[in-house]
Order: sequence, then structure tokens, then C-alpha cells
Amino acid sequence: MTHAIGSRRWAIADGYIPSSSASDDPALVSHECACILNTGDTPAKVEITLFFSDREPAGPYRVTVAARRTVDLRFNDLDDPERVPRDTPYASLIESDTPIVVQQTRLDSRQPPHALLSTIAYCQE
Amino acid sequence: MTHAIGSRRWAIADGYIPSSSASDDPALVSHECACILNTGDTPAKVEITLFFSDREPAGPYRVTVAARRTVDLRFNDLDDPERVPRDTPYASLIESDTPIVVQQTRLDSRQPPHALLSTIAYCQE
Amino acid sequence: MTHAIGSRRWAIADGYIPSSSASDDPALVSHECACILNTGDTPAKVEITLFFSDREPAGPYRVTVAARRTVDLRFNDLDDPERVPRDTPYASLIESDTPIVVQQTRLDSRQPPHALLSTIAYCQE
Amino acid sequence: MTHAIGSRRWAIADGYIPSSSASDDPALVSHECACILNTGDTPAKVEITLFFSDREPAGPYRVTVAARRTVDLRFNDLDDPERVPRDTPYASLIESDTPIVVQQTRLDSRQPPHALLSTIAYCQE
Repeated sequence: MTHAIGSRRWAIADGYIPSSSASDDPALVSHECACILNTGDTPAKVEITLFFSDREPAGPYRVTVAARRTVDLRFNDLDDPERVPRDTPYASLIESDTPIVVQQTRLDSRQPPHALLSTIAYCQE
Repeated sequence: MTHAIGSRRWAIADGYIPSSSASDDPALVSHECACILNTGDTPAKVEITLFFSDREPAGPYRVTVAARRTVDLRFNDLDDPERVPRDTPYASLIESDTPIVVQQTRLDSRQPPHALLSTIAYCQE
Repeated sequence: MTHAIGSRRWAIADGYIPSSSASDDPALVSHECACILNTGDTPAKVEITLFFSDREPAGPYRVTVAARRTVDLRFNDLDDPERVPRDTPYASLIESDTPIVVQQTRLDSRQPPHALLSTIAYCQE
Repeated sequence: MTHAIGSRRWAIADGYIPSSSASDDPALVSHECACILNTGDTPAKVEITLFFSDREPAGPYRVTVAARRTVDLRFNDLDDPERVPRDTPYASLIESDTPIVVQQTRLDSRQPPHALLSTIAYCQE
């Protein structure tokens, strides 16, 4: 591989984790992911900052994506420095020390069956 | 933060608010949002112009996104200078005086359960 | 408005019109749209070429998007020079003489209720 | 056509093939596609590398997209050099010797009716 694909700065503007789910199956609980791909040969140290409508940002949340690995980061599971509130719009800024690719996916199972949305995030060096 | 992420000009080509909803729950009423993230340290003054198939554009609609905040702007709620028509295709041009990130999401609950679509909007300086 | 937003060349790689629909409501029949926004002050003359897996391309299909207007072009309705086949993958190249913005949306109502997908198309000058 | 539209390097960060489907109809079995469009006048030789969370990448998988053709590549069908695991997050790097356009679509039919997601992939030369 000649060089890692991607960018060091990404943003997702529409974050939202529904508090309810029609299923107890962990795969089908309402959740939102940032899927982070690191095609490079060095680990990517990633910092995530969350933005809200009515308070100062939260974070940074830290995650490392190993070389040549991908991580499905569930916003539901973030709890350091604080848990992500449910039923609350938030946005995220995702910054890395090496190039990564970020895609957002939400599974909304408030009503069965679930609905899906996904988009490659916005990037800018 | 070194500088705000984003662009000053964004467009969404496929806007549509269904007039019917299978639910009365405000969270599940058919709606369309432009989620606008301002990671910068100054407020973003945003102007939205709506385009239609058979008439001149409407607007500008004005909204301010405070520094380090995000806004989920529901097109359903816009009413100044005029309400957004239902069951009518429209497109939007979103212009800001500082960099922002824009993502469109539609929740379509004409039939239960709801369907979702989302995409990062198109941007160009 | 200082200048029109957009690009002159766009592509959608995943086109597909299901032949069946659970509803007779025209709004809920399975369909696929290219929503084309022209924010400029001159008409956009648009040519669409369709690509398939096993035959030469079809087209051009021609549509004009008036100044400051948007068009929801239903691929279902194209019939000159030929109808778009159902249940058949196709891709589209969308070329304009002035800048436009293109977003693809599919409503799939093979099973009720319908599913949605949408993405800003790919552009390159 | 003056020149082919697209890029030679693409990435999809959120790959996932559910192992279950509510339907036996091949069109409605849970699946994930990379739709690859080659508008150029020479064949595109494409190599796909898959990334995982806990092991080294798999591949390359090889596919040729003929001149002026599009291919709906189902990740479900890849088996050389190895099958794509189900219920397992993966990401993909898609490299071509000539410009192509890539769009990802997933049909998730774990619960009827199915849900859809789609996005133009991320590209970078």
C-alpha cells in the first residue's frame, strides 16, 4: 500500500440515539455508530468531541484504531468522560493523527422493524 | 481547536415533507431536518433559500447557530417568511458567514414503522 | 446570489427500480429519483446517460432545469430514447452545461411499509 | 465522452452482512453491494481489500468492470481468496487502474420488511 487513504478531520452533524428499542437483541437495539477505517501502517489515535444545542461540548473521547484495522464505535457505549444522552441531538468532530475514513450509521428500532440511515461523514484537512 | 471545520455554502437537492404521519408522537411525525454544526468560536449566521419546481425561491430563512453548538433545524417548523409546503418537492441552499457542516435527515412515517434517509449535504466554497 | 452552486458532471452508481409495489398510490409506488437543483440565473441543459452491466449505454435523456428551479426527475418516467428497465441494475452519468446539484433517492415499496435510501451523487468537473 | 468520471481509490468504512433474512427471494436476502461504474473506454481492473477489527486484511479480491459498464458487486458472493464473514463488521478499500465511481448499498432483511442504506463511498486519489 502506497499511503493510507483518508483525512484527519471528520464531522457528523446529525447524531441521535433513540432511548427505546423494540428488541432486546444487542444487534437490534437502537444505536449509532461511527465506523472508522485505518488502512495505514501505524495506529490512529482518534479524539472525538461531541456538540449539543444548549451546552458546551463534551470530550474528548479517545479511541485507538490499530494499523490496518477498522473499528465500529458505538456512541451508545461511550462513557468517558461522560455518557452520551439519549433522545438528544448531538454532533461529533472526529480528529486523528493519521488519515482515517469515517462513516456514520444509525439503526433505529423504536418501531419494529428497524430503519437504517448511513452516510460517509464530512471531511476536511 | 485550530479552526472551525466546514464550508460556507451547502445545498440539499431532495427536500420533501410528507403531509401524513402514522404517529402523533412529535418525534415520529414525518419531518425533515437540516442538522447544522458550528465547531467555531463565533456564532454562525445562516440563511436558507428554498427552491421549487414551478415558482421563484422562498426566503431567506434566518437562523443563528451559536459558537460550539449544533442545531437540528426542522423544515416543518419554518414559517418566516412563509411555511414550507407539504407533499411538495423543494431544494435548499444554506449559506453561512462562517464554516458549518450540514447533514440532511428525513423521517417518513406515512406508513408505520417509519423509514429514514440521511446524507451529508453538498458543499462548495 | 454571487454564483450558482454545484458541478457540471455527476454520477450515481447504484440505480435500481423494483418492478413491484405494495401500493397503488403514485407517491408510494417503487421509484427512483435524481433531484436536480439549479440555483443559477440561466437554464441548465442536462443530459443523462444510463449504464448497464451487459450492454452499451442508453441515452442521452434530455431535461432542462429552469433558472432558480429544482426538478425531481423520476427514472421511472424516462422513455426517450427508451424506457428504463425494471429489476435491473443501472448507473447514470448526469452532465449539465451549468452548475447543478444532484441527489439520488429511492423509495422501495416491494414490501409495505416502504424503505428509503438517499445520497448526494458523486461530482467531478 | 471527454474523459471517464471518478477516482482510482475508494473506501467504505461500514460493511456488514447480516446472516439472517426474512425472505428466500434472492433479491430480498440480506446483502451488501458495492456498485462500480466505469464510464471510460477501457476496462477497469479493480482490487478490493477487506479490513476487520481483529485480524489482518483479506484480499485482494479482483473484479474487472468492462468499458462503459456498471457492476453490482455483492460482497455476499466474494469467495476468492476467502468468504466474507457474516454478522462481522468489515471495511473495504477499492482500488482501480482507471477512474471509477463507487456507491455502497445494504439491504437488511433480518426483520420484514427490509431496511435500506446507501452512500457514495469516500474517494481520494
